[in-house]
Amino acid sequence: MKPDTLPLDGDVHSPQDCQTVRELLARIGDKWTVIVVTRLKLGPMRFSELRRALPSISQKMLTSTLRALERDGFIERVVTPTIPPRVDYKLTELGVDLLEPLDALADWALRNHNRVLAARQSSDSRETE
Amino acid sequence: MKPDTLPLDGDVHSPQDCQTVRELLARIGDKWTVIVVTRLKLGPMRFSELRRALPSISQKMLTSTLRALERDGFIERVVTPTIPPRVDYKLTELGVDLLEPLDALADWALRNHNRVLAARQSSDSRETE
Repeated sequence: MKPDTLPLDGDVHSPQDCQTVRELLARIGDKWTVIVVTRLKLGPMRFSELRRALPSISQKMLTSTLRALERDGFIERVVTPTIPPRVDYKLTELGVDLLEPLDALADWALRNHNRVLAARQSSDSRETE
Repeated sequence: MKPDTLPLDGDVHSPQDCQTVRELLARIGDKWTVIVVTRLKLGPMRFSELRRALPSISQKMLTSTLRALERDGFIERVVTPTIPPRVDYKLTELGVDLLEPLDALADWALRNHNRVLAARQSSDSRETE
C-alpha cells in the first residue's frame, strides 16, 4: 500500500481503523519496545538476563514493556517446569516479523543521529542569538 | 550495521551515544511524528492545511510536533513575503530520508494491526477466565 493513502487520518477509512493504527505505531515506535524486541532477536532471555543486558531500563518499565508486548502478541513467556520454574521471554512469529521495520528504524537512527544533533545545535544557537 | 550490535545499551559504545539513539528513536517513533512527516511527503503545507488534513491532532500537539521536527532538522518553515506572509512547512533532505524507515513502519502497522488486535483480544479473554 502506498503511504500516500495511509489511513492514519482523514475520512477514507473508519475512525476505528485510524485509531488502531495510530495506537499500534505508538506501541511499536516506543523506544523501550524497540530496545527489548531487538535484544530478544538474539534468542529467548530470562527477566534477570534482560535486566543485566539493558541496564538503562528500570525494573518497573521492563515489566510493563514485557507485559504490553505479550498482550499484543509480540513475545511469549516460555515456562520450563524446573524447581524453581524457569521463565523465558521469546519473540513470537509476529515479533520476528516486526523486527524488519524496527531494525530499519533503529539502523536509521544510528546512521543519522549526528545529522540530527547538528541540526539541533544549529537551531538552538539561532534561538539564543 | 547488524542490529545485534546496536549501541542501544551495554558498554561497547559511550552512554552518550546510547542516550542519543534512544532519544532519536523516541522522537522518530512518535505517532504524531510519523503522521505529520508522512503527510508532508505529499508536498509543503500551511499550518491550517495540516490542521484540516489531520483532524485528530490537537492544535497544541501539532504546534509542538512541528517545533520539535524543525529543531531536529526534519522540516523547515518556508516564508513567502506576501501580505499577510505565507508560511509553509516542508520536509528537509533529512526529513525525506527519514520517510523510508517511517513508511516501512507505518506500512507494517497497517498490514498487521488485525494480528495485534486478535492477540490482544485472546490475551484479554484469558485474563478474565
